[in-house]
Amino acid sequence: MPSVPDFVATHAADLYADLDAWLRIPSISASPDHADDVRRSADWLAGRLRDVGFPVVEVWETEGLPAVFAEWPSGDAGAPVVVLYGHHDVQPVDPLELWRTPPFEPTVVGEELFARGAIDDKGQVLFHLLGLRAHLAATGRSAPAVTLKLLVEGEEESGSVHFRSLLEDHRDRLACDAVFVSDTSVFDRDTPSICTGMRGLTDCQVDLHGPDVDLHSGSFGGAVPNPLAVLADLLAALHDDDGRVTLAGFYDRVVPLSDRERELFARLPFDERQWVEQTALSRGTAGEQGFSTLERLWGRPTAEVNGMWGGYTGPGHKTIVPSDAHAKLSFRLVADQDPLEVQRAVARHVAAYDRDGIRATVTFSGPGVRPCLTPLDAPALQAATRAMENAFGRPVLYTREGGSGPEADLAEVLAVPVVFLGVGLPDDRIHAPNERVVLPQLLLGAQAAAYLWEELAAAPA
Amino acid sequence: MPSVPDFVATHAADLYADLDAWLRIPSISASPDHADDVRRSADWLAGRLRDVGFPVVEVWETEGLPAVFAEWPSGDAGAPVVVLYGHHDVQPVDPLELWRTPPFEPTVVGEELFARGAIDDKGQVLFHLLGLRAHLAATGRSAPAVTLKLLVEGEEESGSVHFRSLLEDHRDRLACDAVFVSDTSVFDRDTPSICTGMRGLTDCQVDLHGPDVDLHSGSFGGAVPNPLAVLADLLAALHDDDGRVTLAGFYDRVVPLSDRERELFARLPFDERQWVEQTALSRGTAGEQGFSTLERLWGRPTAEVNGMWGGYTGPGHKTIVPSDAHAKLSFRLVADQDPLEVQRAVARHVAAYDRDGIRATVTFSGPGVRPCLTPLDAPALQAATRAMENAFGRPVLYTREGGSGPEADLAEVLAVPVVFLGVGLPDDRIHAPNERVVLPQLLLGAQAAAYLWEELAAAPA
Repeated sequence: MPSVPDFVATHAADLYADLDAWLRIPSISASPDHADDVRRSADWLAGRLRDVGFPVVEVWETEGLPAVFAEWPSGDAGAPVVVLYGHHDVQPVDPLELWRTPPFEPTVVGEELFARGAIDDKGQVLFHLLGLRAHLAATGRSAPAVTLKLLVEGEEESGSVHFRSLLEDHRDRLACDAVFVSDTSVFDRDTPSICTGMRGLTDCQVDLHGPDVDLHSGSFGGAVPNPLAVLADLLAALHDDDGRVTLAGFYDRVVPLSDRERELFARLPFDERQWVEQTALSRGTAGEQGFSTLERLWGRPTAEVNGMWGGYTGPGHKTIVPSDAHAKLSFRLVADQDPLEVQRAVARHVAAYDRDGIRATVTFSGPGVRPCLTPLDAPALQAATRAMENAFGRPVLYTREGGSGPEADLAEVLAVPVVFLGVGLPDDRIHAPNERVVLPQLLLGAQAAAYLWEELAAAPA
Repeated sequence: MPSVPDFVATHAADLYADLDAWLRIPSISASPDHADDVRRSADWLAGRLRDVGFPVVEVWETEGLPAVFAEWPSGDAGAPVVVLYGHHDVQPVDPLELWRTPPFEPTVVGEELFARGAIDDKGQVLFHLLGLRAHLAATGRSAPAVTLKLLVEGEEESGSVHFRSLLEDHRDRLACDAVFVSDTSVFDRDTPSICTGMRGLTDCQVDLHGPDVDLHSGSFGGAVPNPLAVLADLLAALHDDDGRVTLAGFYDRVVPLSDRERELFARLPFDERQWVEQTALSRGTAGEQGFSTLERLWGRPTAEVNGMWGGYTGPGHKTIVPSDAHAKLSFRLVADQDPLEVQRAVARHVAAYDRDGIRATVTFSGPGVRPCLTPLDAPALQAATRAMENAFGRPVLYTREGGSGPEADLAEVLAVPVVFLGVGLPDDRIHAPNERVVLPQLLLGAQAAAYLWEELAAAPA
C-alpha cells in the first residue's frame, strides 16, 4: 500500500484539476446575479463527492443558497463521528481592475495559483477529498476510520444568514463527536499551527437625544445637556485606565488564558514591530494591561467604538448644541462569555445615561455570535496536532482567531468541540484582489487530513 | 420747550416714515446680488443723517460692504465722547413662503410693523435719530450734550468680516469714552433691561489619526489604538463631575459673578420651565454645578462639542477599528478670559492624547472673539440705566448675552466700556420669517436715547 505522502504526490494532479474546474464557477453568494453560479458550484461539488465514493450526497436547500452535505459511514463499529465544515461560495471580486489575472480563470505561477476562492475556501475543501483518498489507499480501507460528514455551506461570504437554522433543521443528521473546520491559516509557512477558538461578537447602536432641535451654543450652551458630550462620557466610561472593560460582570465568565497557552503563544514567531507597522499600519499597540498583543487579540474580550456621529460635521464651524448623538459599538467576546448577558450589561450601562434631559437608547443588531474554544487537551485537538505534525514534520503550535464566525454555531448547536484545521498562509489575500493558494500547502493539508482520521479513530474518546 | 415724551409722540410719524423708506431697501449683506442694495442703504442713511443735522457724514468703504460714519461734536468743552453702533444690513429672507407679508414691503398691523430688518437693526438705529432730535428740542441745544459718533456697519449679518480692520483703520476717528450698541432686546415688554456683556468664543477642530486604514475589529480589535475611543476620552476629560471645564487655568481670569449681579439676575421674571420646554425644546437643564440657568448662560464659560464623526456611520454594522476620529469644539468665554490663552490650554489638552499610536492635532478657526463685560457701577452703564428708567417708568434690570459678536471688538480696539442699549422684544423673530418691531418700543427707545446724552454729560467721568 502506498504511503500517505506518496499517494498525495502521485495524485496531486487530480487536486489541481478539481481546483481549476471548481474555481471557474463564480459562486459569489453576496451577488444575486450569481445565485445560479452558487447552485452550479453546489452541484459540481456534489458530483465530485459522489465520484470520490461518498455513499450519501445531498444538496441542502435553505431559504437562500444551498449547502452540500455528504456522509461516509465508517466500517468500524463505535468509530468517532466527525463533521467537516467548509464553504463553496466566494467573496465578490471588486475592485476588478486590481486583479493581475482574471479572478475566475485560475492561473498558476510557480507554486502559486491565483483565483477568487483559491484558498477561501475551495482549495481547503478539496484537499480533504485527496486526503480522504490517501487515507483509504494507505490503510487499505474501503470506508474511512471515522464516520465522516461533510457540510459545505453556500452563504459563508454573505453572512451565513440561514446557517443556524440549517444546523437546527438537520441537527440529528449532523450529530457527531467533533467538528473540524477547514477555513483558516497556519501561523506562517514554517510554523504549522491549529486554531483552537474564535471570539464571539455582539454589536449595537447607541442613540442619545437631547434637545429636539439643534440649539445655538451662545444662547443655550452651558445650560442644556449636550448629547455629544454625554456620548463621550458614556464611551469613555466603557474602559478603565488599565484598558479593561468596565461593564458589570463583563469578565465573570471569561476563561482565563492558561499558563501553558500563554507559553505556547509566546513561542510563535510573532514579529510585533512588523505587525504594527506593516499589517496594522499603526504607530503603536494599545489594549488591556498585562497581556501581550497576541493574547489581547485572541484571548481577551474587547469593547470597540466602530463609528460615531452627531452635530455639525461639515466644513467650517457651526456653534451648536446638537440634538442627537450616535455611536456604533461592537464587543468581541471570548469563551465562555454569553452575548445576551453582555447585551444586558451594555443596556444597563446605556440606561445610566438616560437622565438629565438625555434620552439614551441602545439597539442590538441581533443575538450576537458566541465565542468558541477547544481546550488544548481535547482528544480531537490532540489528534489533529499529531496529524499536522506528521504531515508538516514540525511541532505544531496553537493560535486562536480574533474574529467571529458562524463556525461558533457548530460548536453550540452540535454541542461538540470545534477544531480549526486550515493550511492557508497569512498573505494569501483572502477577500482581496489576487487571492492565491500556495499549492504545496494544499498537499500538506491533504496529508494531514489523511492522518487525521486514523489518529482520531485511535484516540481515547 | 417740549418735553422728551411730547416731542417723541409729536414726531413719531417721522420715525415711521423713515422706517418705511429704509426697510424697502433689501440690504441683505450675505447675498452678492444685493450688494448694490446695501450701498443704497448706506447712502439712504447718510442722507438722512445729514437731514437730521450731523455736520460730518461719511460712507466708509471696506473691502466688502460700506459702513456709515457720522459725527456731531458737542458744543460743550470736555463733554463725553460716545460711539453709537448699529448696522444697516439685514438677514436673508428664506424661506420666503413662510412670510405672511412681503419682507421688504413694511406692513403695519396694530402696533406691530412687519419687515425684514424692522428690529434688527434698522428700527434700533432710527429710534436714535428721533431721540437725538428730542434731546436737542427738549434741552434747547443746537448740538448734543455729548460728542456723538455714529458707526453703522454694513456686514453684521454676514460675519462682520471687515469690521475689525475698519475699527483699526479708523481708531483715531472713533476715539471715545464709551460705546453704546443698539442691537439687542429687553428681557420682556414689562421688564426693561440693559445687557452688560457678551460671551467670547473660540472654536476648533480636533483630529485623531490611528491606524492608516480602517482595521477589522476581529483581527485587530483590542491590540491597536482606537481613535474614536481616544476621542471619547479626550472629550469626556474636558469636564469634571461638577460640569466644570478641566482645562488648565481655564477659570483663572474669569470675573466671578458678584452677589449683586446674581441677585439682580434672580429678579428677572425668568420662567425656567417654559424656557426648557418651549424655547430649548429640551427635557431638562444641565451644566456647571452651583449656578442657575441664567448664570450658566450669561456668566460662565463653556466647552461644547458641536460635532463629532468617524468610522462607520451607515446603516447596519461594520466592525472596524477606524483610522480617524474628528470633533468640532467651541468654547464660550466670559470676561476676562483670553481666547488665545484658552487655545493654548486646549492645545495642551489635545497634545496629551498624542501618544500610544494616536496622532492628535487641533486647528483653531481663527483668533477667536473676546468676551466683554461692563461693570454694573460703570458711569456709562449707570447713565443708561437712568435714561431707560426715565423712559420706561420702571426699574431697569440687567442681562448679559450668551452669544458672541463683533461688538466685542469695539470694546477691545477702542478700549472703552460697551453698553448694550436695545429695545427689541424676545419674540420679534429676528433672523426668521415675519420679523417685526413693536412700534411703541421704538418710541420708548427714542425717549431713552434722548435722556441718555444728558445723563451721560452729567455723570462723573
